[in-house]
Amino acid sequence: MDSCVIPLRHGGLSLVQTTDFFYPLVEDPYMMGRIACANVLSDLYAMGITECDNMLMLLSISQKMNEKEREQVMPLMMKGFRDAAEEGGTSVTGGQTVINPWIIIGGVASVVCQPSDFIMPDSAVPGDVLVLTKPLGTQVAVNAHQWMDIPEKWNKIKLVITKEEVEHAYQEAMLNMATLNHTAAALMHKFNAHAATDITGFGIIGHACNLAQQQRNDVAFVIHNLPIIAKMAAVSKACGNLFGLLQGTSSETSGGLLICLPREQAARFCAEMKSSRLGFSGALGQDGGPGDGQQAWIIGIVEKGNRCARIIDKPRIIEVPYRGSVIGTQESSNNNASPHEVQLT
Amino acid sequence: MDSCVIPLRHGGLSLVQTTDFFYPLVEDPYMMGRIACANVLSDLYAMGITECDNMLMLLSISQKMNEKEREQVMPLMMKGFRDAAEEGGTSVTGGQTVINPWIIIGGVASVVCQPSDFIMPDSAVPGDVLVLTKPLGTQVAVNAHQWMDIPEKWNKIKLVITKEEVEHAYQEAMLNMATLNHTAAALMHKFNAHAATDITGFGIIGHACNLAQQQRNDVAFVIHNLPIIAKMAAVSKACGNLFGLLQGTSSETSGGLLICLPREQAARFCAEMKSSRLGFSGALGQDGGPGDGQQAWIIGIVEKGNRCARIIDKPRIIEVPYRGSVIGTQESSNNNASPHEVQLT
Repeated sequence: MDSCVIPLRHGGLSLVQTTDFFYPLVEDPYMMGRIACANVLSDLYAMGITECDNMLMLLSISQKMNEKEREQVMPLMMKGFRDAAEEGGTSVTGGQTVINPWIIIGGVASVVCQPSDFIMPDSAVPGDVLVLTKPLGTQVAVNAHQWMDIPEKWNKIKLVITKEEVEHAYQEAMLNMATLNHTAAALMHKFNAHAATDITGFGIIGHACNLAQQQRNDVAFVIHNLPIIAKMAAVSKACGNLFGLLQGTSSETSGGLLICLPREQAARFCAEMKSSRLGFSGALGQDGGPGDGQQAWIIGIVEKGNRCARIIDKPRIIEVPYRGSVIGTQESSNNNASPHEVQLT
Repeated sequence: MDSCVIPLRHGGLSLVQTTDFFYPLVEDPYMMGRIACANVLSDLYAMGITECDNMLMLLSISQKMNEKEREQVMPLMMKGFRDAAEEGGTSVTGGQTVINPWIIIGGVASVVCQPSDFIMPDSAVPGDVLVLTKPLGTQVAVNAHQWMDIPEKWNKIKLVITKEEVEHAYQEAMLNMATLNHTAAALMHKFNAHAATDITGFGIIGHACNLAQQQRNDVAFVIHNLPIIAKMAAVSKACGNLFGLLQGTSSETSGGLLICLPREQAARFCAEMKSSRLGFSGALGQDGGPGDGQQAWIIGIVEKGNRCARIIDKPRIIEVPYRGSVIGTQESSNNNASPHEVQLT
């Protein structure tokens, strides 16, 4: 499970908590702080938990940074983390900081709640559909962005993408990683979700397999559609499928939730995601509001099976356009059907 | 405070939690795991909390270790951590592991409890006495042990200590660091402690100052006696007082609790510490039992003052003998008065 659930000695309550820490992967310290916080909270959100009682921050400062660099970078990173925590309705009250060769950022999220507050991720049934709440491809976008400065790497992908597009894909990845899965967690209750997990280091197929193995019923997850940040599928192919993006093994950071929903609820779930206020409303300089929400996609189905997950041969690639830019929005829109129109072939 | 205390939405309960992580400082991976766990739990014990609902383990494996080294070292470290957690009546149910240049070990301890379960560390009054539950000098002992292999370092201290004594001091430090402050936490309730903290990275004076600043009454802490692992005061002096051990600034790892107790309770507190079963009973190959407990010392007094702490000029050094060995036990016993005989000059 994404979080541990500890029965307490008091009135049927449980302590649910999770921890995560990792190394910076974007250049903007403030955004890195937000991403780290979103990534920690995501493990609670994957269980349908929408409240968090407390967060601790785990930090290491790199010994290779001089005093000035530390003073510039670390407060921004901490502010990003705190701001995201506040957006999630919680706050950071403690933590630990050490000196280390590499920068580390992460945290702990804890909540004490009643059984009705969380959804045990074990109740998928044949006939459910699989919904994904953020596009894939964050690792490819982050790497492509680094490769712009490395000619031998850049030469491999420059035929399929421009530098401007890489910049936009990187921004898009950063926004997605910094977005809390809070709305999705709340809607899991409203639309009777049967199980969910969040997509992170093991890629969508790794986490789908893991979720399938936890099911009480004999089910298998079959993924038909892969929503991917625009052009990242082409980049992945151009560099010899280095990441396994189309096989679902490409690592994601602070990815979306993969949710098993009753078929009749899924389209409405996606519609409400879209009409909700954008979690990280400041990101696009907008105030949120109807239509500014997050996109979600029906990407597969739950069949009878032996607790495994697979992607079909030749899955449909949904090119997810960059927000806050025109690049990709028109060209890709052929592929970018609205969620309830997506056909499961 | 050593832990954060978060009021919950349920029935007057609070979530108390803490996190700590650091780098190995002893060579034995199993003992290192125990020390890391004792160090994390110590922040709860300092608040008089004797139960822990859940622990998470934070680990990084060094990228410089080969596969064989990893397989030998990391499971032992994890076992030490888990064994100490079990001894503390709790268990480890989650965590995170990453690869890093340096090994990291630490954890998170959380408990949901009622107000009566913890003692807010803010109620010291003039007339209280200060009790310390482990001797000082862990940093000096660990460093001296490393210096045995570095001639230019060893030459500085070899006139005041033998290699055999260093080995015993190191073992003693390791045992102390691996001992849970659980008994002390339980006795804080029984003997009506007014405030406490645990002694770690800032040394006894740093933590005493910190505790003094949190007091509601106008008090000052005055330390008269310094219980120190035998010979470590001499080693500290011989190397030019590098650590500030006698000034109270020498860093400790998983140190004892510094507790403000009503004067009339302190001697009985120390006596019950001594007669309790030793927390880490396996350490000496003994089964615990009366008289195998932990020593504690009355080290100072609480006066009227402006929320500061100080060590008197020429404090009395209490040479704490090595357990499980004869070295130091006789020679030092002149100085090693039983706790209720210690005079506050």
